[in-house]
Amino acid sequence: MQYTKNFYQIKSTEEIFENIKLEKTHIGYYSLPYQDTTEIKEFVKTVEQKHIVVLGIGGSSLGTYAIHKFLQHKENDKKLHFLESTDPLDIHCKISKIDLNDALFIIISKSGTTIETISILKHLSFVTTVDKNNCIVITEDDSKLNDFAVHNGMKRFFIPKNVGGRFSVFSAVGLVPLAIIGIDIDNLLNGCKEVDDSFFNKKEFYDEIMQKGRFIVENKNRFNINVIFSYSSLLEGFNKWYIQLWGESLGKLNINMTKQGFTPIGILGPVDQHSFLQLIMEGKRDKTVTFIKVEDFEDDIAIPDISLFGLEEFDYINKLPFKQLINEQADATIEAIENLKDIPCDVITIDRIDEYNLAKLMYGYQLLTSVIGKFVQINTYDQPGVEAGKIILKEKLQG
Amino acid sequence: MQYTKNFYQIKSTEEIFENIKLEKTHIGYYSLPYQDTTEIKEFVKTVEQKHIVVLGIGGSSLGTYAIHKFLQHKENDKKLHFLESTDPLDIHCKISKIDLNDALFIIISKSGTTIETISILKHLSFVTTVDKNNCIVITEDDSKLNDFAVHNGMKRFFIPKNVGGRFSVFSAVGLVPLAIIGIDIDNLLNGCKEVDDSFFNKKEFYDEIMQKGRFIVENKNRFNINVIFSYSSLLEGFNKWYIQLWGESLGKLNINMTKQGFTPIGILGPVDQHSFLQLIMEGKRDKTVTFIKVEDFEDDIAIPDISLFGLEEFDYINKLPFKQLINEQADATIEAIENLKDIPCDVITIDRIDEYNLAKLMYGYQLLTSVIGKFVQINTYDQPGVEAGKIILKEKLQG
Repeated sequence: MQYTKNFYQIKSTEEIFENIKLEKTHIGYYSLPYQDTTEIKEFVKTVEQKHIVVLGIGGSSLGTYAIHKFLQHKENDKKLHFLESTDPLDIHCKISKIDLNDALFIIISKSGTTIETISILKHLSFVTTVDKNNCIVITEDDSKLNDFAVHNGMKRFFIPKNVGGRFSVFSAVGLVPLAIIGIDIDNLLNGCKEVDDSFFNKKEFYDEIMQKGRFIVENKNRFNINVIFSYSSLLEGFNKWYIQLWGESLGKLNINMTKQGFTPIGILGPVDQHSFLQLIMEGKRDKTVTFIKVEDFEDDIAIPDISLFGLEEFDYINKLPFKQLINEQADATIEAIENLKDIPCDVITIDRIDEYNLAKLMYGYQLLTSVIGKFVQINTYDQPGVEAGKIILKEKLQG
Repeated sequence: MQYTKNFYQIKSTEEIFENIKLEKTHIGYYSLPYQDTTEIKEFVKTVEQKHIVVLGIGGSSLGTYAIHKFLQHKENDKKLHFLESTDPLDIHCKISKIDLNDALFIIISKSGTTIETISILKHLSFVTTVDKNNCIVITEDDSKLNDFAVHNGMKRFFIPKNVGGRFSVFSAVGLVPLAIIGIDIDNLLNGCKEVDDSFFNKKEFYDEIMQKGRFIVENKNRFNINVIFSYSSLLEGFNKWYIQLWGESLGKLNINMTKQGFTPIGILGPVDQHSFLQLIMEGKRDKTVTFIKVEDFEDDIAIPDISLFGLEEFDYINKLPFKQLINEQADATIEAIENLKDIPCDVITIDRIDEYNLAKLMYGYQLLTSVIGKFVQINTYDQPGVEAGKIILKEKLQG
């Protein structure tokens, strides 16, 4: 007797783990922690410009932006800019803040055919000189954009073919601009290695990621929205990066052509206590909530010990360090949600604000995304759904 | 025979309209378009500082931020800052960009007891002098913060008691800071008046708002997520404002204690074509999508007529104005979604980027929110769900 099936069913955790180990041999992001960064660090020493302009969209900029936002207070005095939208007023506004005579342009496009990036590159080529002295290119090694770079003698870094855009932050895509602004990229990779080792050797992260992935998948029809509630403004970029990673990787047709979807939402505490929190507390029970806290902000600024007329009732917060206040706010919100009992909720606490800890968080989320993709039996790494719009656009423009 | 009921049922459009007309007599935001702005404009003439610092969170800042982001290229040379989070690194970073000796602080809190605002006010009082020469207050006329302002002889503007924070952008909360940075506040109010007149006299906006509200409510169990997809980076602030308005107003228990929830998501085109769009296209059908386009960006910057080696295939976009490119991108995405047939989608087109048109959009969304609140029989204007966390926090801190 034989039995074959093509229907979707949640596999065992062990089977998922074996599948992940199999894809590790051909999905490129798993190898990035172990890359040699010598060439990047050598190149960085030659960069003299003050304004570093990343020209890229989606996976070509979001990860870099996330790490930059988190660590900007530790960066050197170079200024990082991002050009991505085709909104003409946005282009004007952003370019007006760049000293074009003291700028390095980093053109990033995996395929080399991103229309937003090419059109802004053309605009830059018109308003200033763009040549090998102020422009480098990060792309696949056989793209049209690579031909452009070779022809112009521009320095190139490559995105491996098997590394997708939204999984590329720890490739040259992120490492080159981040190293230039003073981020310790080896420490970023150390964070990734720590998670990689822990997960694949079934240590701490294995249980955490597998259990979380399984819970989300098992309850996906009830809780179709996954909220990340980050208690630090510095995680604003991380939230955006998460939204792309989660939305674009997991919003797919599965093997039975059933539409899967895990809707990511990123909010910030305490600001969004005054916005989205009410919906979480009293709204429909369709959300899981993951809190992210920073254990130590390494900043001792405290609320001063002064009494303001009329506001004396607030003297109880005097002498309280802000870093404690924000964490108490987080804990109070967590407790309020936990008291409701019917909102699935977990808490990730980052030890401190540095490369190592943010990389652990991001690499862990990449692994979690891969695990969930395996659970729901989709291709986590493509994005076929956006092609239709691109084809229609080309038809419109080429008439 | 008598028949009474307490169960939830979708009422007729006409009944909803009558209910809205009834609440118009006691809900304050409906009256704001007709306020006298003389006092604000007179005050603005006296402001000499270059740095305008809004100290407020949630409804005290989001609306102002939305209008500022949309019109920043038309503002005068004053610089607007927002202090809201208790994140110590965020506070440092933002204050470092303010010339404290040339700053006007605008303390905004409806209740006057917002812990984030009070703690940052204390910090400011410690690092600089905060007095009637550089500080004004916007609050309810009997709040503790009002006492503080009176005691210090500070200029005060008032938030009417019956205007909720997230509906307060067209009160002094928004108008005072916006007028200072050169926004035409009368033209903002003209936009509101236009929508108010149209809706309440059952002209154009009446059908639009009523039909949309009814659709969203009738399909709320199937489509529990409402995405706004704005095709201009300038609408980033509007998206955030919408998220608060929608989430905090409509995430409530209804008259049968059933948890209602309409989850707002705000994304930007074309950037999020490279992020969230895949999820919309192939993910679970749990979303409605509202596109917002700008008819005329009033900017003629075009892609230059140059050919880049290797990238000659893109010469077809040469001479195309960016404002046309972004709108063609919007139209292509809309067409791709419409072709799928099973994603409810509508398109709002703003004529141009000015006070009048943004106010129409925002006031229209306030009305839509009120209408949906009536349909689902909730209190649109309170936020009881966030109180639990506040009480826990106070206990922790006073512990």
